Amino acid sequence: MKRRRAFSELPNQYLFPEIARRRVEYLEKHPNASIIDLGIGNTILPLIPPVAKAMEKAARSMTTPEGYVGYGPEQGILPLRQKIVETYYSDCITPDEIFVSDGAKCDVGRLQVLFGGGIRVGLQDPSYPVYFDGSIINGVSSIKLLPCHPDNGFLPDLTQTTELDLLYICNPNNPTGAAYTKAQLEELVIYAKKSQFLILYDAAYSHYIQGSDHPRSIYEIEGADEVAIEVNSLSKTAGFTGVRLGWTVVPKALRYQCGFSLWNDWSRLTSTLFNGASYLSQIGGIAALEAMDQLEKTIAYYMENGRRLKKAFSTLGYDVYGGEHAPYLWIHAPGELSWDLFESFLNDKQLIVTPGVGYGPSGEHFFRLSSFAQKEIIDSLLMRL
Amino acid sequence: MKRRRAFSELPNQYLFPEIARRRVEYLEKHPNASIIDLGIGNTILPLIPPVAKAMEKAARSMTTPEGYVGYGPEQGILPLRQKIVETYYSDCITPDEIFVSDGAKCDVGRLQVLFGGGIRVGLQDPSYPVYFDGSIINGVSSIKLLPCHPDNGFLPDLTQTTELDLLYICNPNNPTGAAYTKAQLEELVIYAKKSQFLILYDAAYSHYIQGSDHPRSIYEIEGADEVAIEVNSLSKTAGFTGVRLGWTVVPKALRYQCGFSLWNDWSRLTSTLFNGASYLSQIGGIAALEAMDQLEKTIAYYMENGRRLKKAFSTLGYDVYGGEHAPYLWIHAPGELSWDLFESFLNDKQLIVTPGVGYGPSGEHFFRLSSFAQKEIIDSLLMRL
Repeated sequence: MKRRRAFSELPNQYLFPEIARRRVEYLEKHPNASIIDLGIGNTILPLIPPVAKAMEKAARSMTTPEGYVGYGPEQGILPLRQKIVETYYSDCITPDEIFVSDGAKCDVGRLQVLFGGGIRVGLQDPSYPVYFDGSIINGVSSIKLLPCHPDNGFLPDLTQTTELDLLYICNPNNPTGAAYTKAQLEELVIYAKKSQFLILYDAAYSHYIQGSDHPRSIYEIEGADEVAIEVNSLSKTAGFTGVRLGWTVVPKALRYQCGFSLWNDWSRLTSTLFNGASYLSQIGGIAALEAMDQLEKTIAYYMENGRRLKKAFSTLGYDVYGGEHAPYLWIHAPGELSWDLFESFLNDKQLIVTPGVGYGPSGEHFFRLSSFAQKEIIDSLLMRL
Repeated sequence: MKRRRAFSELPNQYLFPEIARRRVEYLEKHPNASIIDLGIGNTILPLIPPVAKAMEKAARSMTTPEGYVGYGPEQGILPLRQKIVETYYSDCITPDEIFVSDGAKCDVGRLQVLFGGGIRVGLQDPSYPVYFDGSIINGVSSIKLLPCHPDNGFLPDLTQTTELDLLYICNPNNPTGAAYTKAQLEELVIYAKKSQFLILYDAAYSHYIQGSDHPRSIYEIEGADEVAIEVNSLSKTAGFTGVRLGWTVVPKALRYQCGFSLWNDWSRLTSTLFNGASYLSQIGGIAALEAMDQLEKTIAYYMENGRRLKKAFSTLGYDVYGGEHAPYLWIHAPGELSWDLFESFLNDKQLIVTPGVGYGPSGEHFFRLSSFAQKEIIDSLLMRL
């Protein structure tokens, strides 16, 4: 067996396992250290009771002949797809355009298989490493990094997006926290249509958007169904990071340049290489979407953490971005290398941050803080600072 | 966006959605028909109670701060990996060589991404369509079909396997039901080593093997850890088709020709493009493996269905293969086209079979029957026949 060439072109480690490795190394040297981890964006608040109750009931019913469920439709059970449409896309998307998955990350991986290696990809720089690494793994050789920095409000320069086949947009952005206004997103959709590129729109943090000036779905923009695929998940909305449930929206209006339907190929790919999300997770997902008011409280809790962290780090003299529409702060430390920042926060404050350069070269001199923590942990951190 | 060329080279439909489409079409014309479906291999017996109890408990605990679980390790929680090793691979594989997944089909898809399009693939013909279709999707242009028919006991001719990089072996085979004896599997491993190809060994039906002459895992063969990846799942062993849980074994001894560790790249790929199986499914998986005696009863139930079907179709004059170490019968109808057989069984007996040609050209003139049915359904079918 030959090694796929792409693997030698990958950065050595996926970001978070590398952080985990350094954390373990530190703990081996300092076994009594009390580490505060604001690195990986991992939810910590419990599931809301109706979700657990629904999954318990589904598990019990699976022990009866009538309630047992084997393979379901690869695209997900209809009541869940209907509920997703009702909650997120009531006017513009139909249930058969929803493909339920075991999470946005996994579906981004499958979308990369759909497109293959022969395309020109554009990425926000910095961005979620899966877009870059997964493109490389799938053999993409043309990747254009579109720098996002304070001067452009962390949104890519549209004139740089014309020579692309696919543009990844994470909105609100991980890691910068930047969110498009409606006018900005309209402009992006118009550009995509004119320049004939597809937008892969990752809306995993859409529920963190505050107010109504910033769209939560790209399909709020007219014509977006002709240029955009949207992925989303309940990981950050309902604490489903361990439960695993997401979805991808592939509108039937989406066409390749040759005119063929993208929906057809995506249906073919998911039925061939995927076998549906866990039935229990799907039942839990319906219950979560039916209790959105309870979920909003969880989101408000995390956002309050972010507000306090933002205040504290601003007071320390940093330029702090994000935190307004996202559970992440993106903090500038000019002149300091971000892995050095990682090491110094770990050594001096026993605090784990995510080094900005892990998200792309424009992330150098930045670090990311996650708001996913118990309030009491934030209290301790503010004491330490 | 350009359409990936591979998609135009795919058979039009994945097999089972095509069968489902024809079923719906038939029911529209004959709304009162009482269809017996022995097509897709979908489990029907309920989950055993300890599995459901464990998942219920896990769901409940997820509503507490102490019991809540977010992202887990992408390769699965350690107690499950340990339990898998203990149950299947006690002498030869370590827990860090186990990668837990949401099912064998999904992991075959990811393995195809690992290898990419530039390899020479060999397939048993007939075989599970995912091997062929997924290879095509990932850009493989060299696919050698190795005919499996009654004359060679449905096992591929080894002299045809020398010019390969990757050979898919499903054992016991879906659809033919053929299983390797220990001596045959030893010979295969020796061939693979000599000819320097990798074996992707799909053991999803290993629990249907009866007696001890036929290995359940390829790692029962000495040296297999240097030439084989094994995928497995609890779908057919514990009725987890809807729960979604499987695993892939990538031994650390596996090397590419360049000497680099395959385990390293697989770790990198799974942490980049996968986010772990559902926590509830993993907890359910541990409970299932701890109650293997109860699972054996379910398997015996399906095998008894197979025995009765085999007797009935033999009596009707067919040559019936399989059913001894697998939940599938592979039935020969020389001179008849297998989609015609599908249509005539549907029209004459309201019975859904799987047309053999859906598994490859050597499946023409065959059809597959699944043993996954209630005993009472088999009773009715035998009456109709």
